[in-house]
Amino acid sequence: MDVLDAVKERRSFTFFESDRTIPDNRLRELIELANLAPSSFNLQPWRVVVVQEPERKRVLRTYALDQSKVEEASAVLIIVADPDVEVNLNSMLNSWEELGYIKKPSRATITDMVRRRYGSEGSCERKIFAAKNAALFAMSLMLVARGLGLETHAIDGFDEGPMKKAFAIPDDKLVPMLIAVGYPRQDALLLPRAFRRSLEDFVSFESYDAGKIPG
Amino acid sequence: MDVLDAVKERRSFTFFESDRTIPDNRLRELIELANLAPSSFNLQPWRVVVVQEPERKRVLRTYALDQSKVEEASAVLIIVADPDVEVNLNSMLNSWEELGYIKKPSRATITDMVRRRYGSEGSCERKIFAAKNAALFAMSLMLVARGLGLETHAIDGFDEGPMKKAFAIPDDKLVPMLIAVGYPRQDALLLPRAFRRSLEDFVSFESYDAGKIPG
Repeated sequence: MDVLDAVKERRSFTFFESDRTIPDNRLRELIELANLAPSSFNLQPWRVVVVQEPERKRVLRTYALDQSKVEEASAVLIIVADPDVEVNLNSMLNSWEELGYIKKPSRATITDMVRRRYGSEGSCERKIFAAKNAALFAMSLMLVARGLGLETHAIDGFDEGPMKKAFAIPDDKLVPMLIAVGYPRQDALLLPRAFRRSLEDFVSFESYDAGKIPG
Repeated sequence: MDVLDAVKERRSFTFFESDRTIPDNRLRELIELANLAPSSFNLQPWRVVVVQEPERKRVLRTYALDQSKVEEASAVLIIVADPDVEVNLNSMLNSWEELGYIKKPSRATITDMVRRRYGSEGSCERKIFAAKNAALFAMSLMLVARGLGLETHAIDGFDEGPMKKAFAIPDDKLVPMLIAVGYPRQDALLLPRAFRRSLEDFVSFESYDAGKIPG
């Protein structure tokens, strides 16, 4: 599937074939390819909890506004964002040093830069860091899914606190979204795509409040 | 270009052909297609400031750790995330009502839901909402770029406060990242891709600390 078509025809599907499962090797491929997404300082602050057992999907549904797609999709991925900027820092620095991106003395500089940019433990800056990077991974996954014959629905309507408890997700982690993944029901009606702003409404040139985009 | 190849071969390019500009119609297409990304309640809390005049790129570079790619890329997009959950709420509800997604009485329920989920003005929840959705748009844009023969580099190393001032971006908005966009220099060496974790290190099944991904 062409990448531009993958983007143009991606829709949030609500009705999935509830009796189908995703083969293990396809699920691996989905996550492995999505995981090539870029991230701040290559820190990859995301994890994935795959929920595909019927009983676990039923539990997840109770925290997600009782949306039926949570139970009917083949799998629901809980996207977890980790505000701990240090978790992958050493692996990242080792890799950059080995591959020739940086020289050894730069390790301290980069470590300092990361710490300064994202504030201290528990700060909102760290949560923003975690959430935005996990979202890069999530969008990558939604487009990879299309290339593998799967469709998705990103979900932000859920009760984060209790849901984290039920799935043993530590308090300090965030769940920026769930992604339902599966095979769309052929008989389901897909409503027309909801509104998008025109470029004139959200793009400016050289400055936030300046020049309009050329027509 | 195949969507899976677009993901597999996407890299963060550092060296761009500095004498090339992106034709206006291609830039429009890039942003318009990226803008089909999904968002929480379809609220699309992002804006884009396109910086492509040489003098403005030079200014932007001074706030971005003096990285030469900021000046050498054809354009640098300042991705702006808007924590104001109300900005597009009415347009969204109108669209959902017109298209048959919801009935009129649900408008109040959804409005309440949005307000409860993202806290009050100035809250960290609203910033997370803005940043994660803007990142969905950003990742979409980086993959669309490849389909249009362009390459990108997402940048998180910049001095956000002063940079916002210089580009007239209001204080309450966030800049989750810059994206350099352009044509890669053919003579530039691309280092091997930096480390990615193996699935075993970040994927679990049914619960955060449970079952490993099948091999």
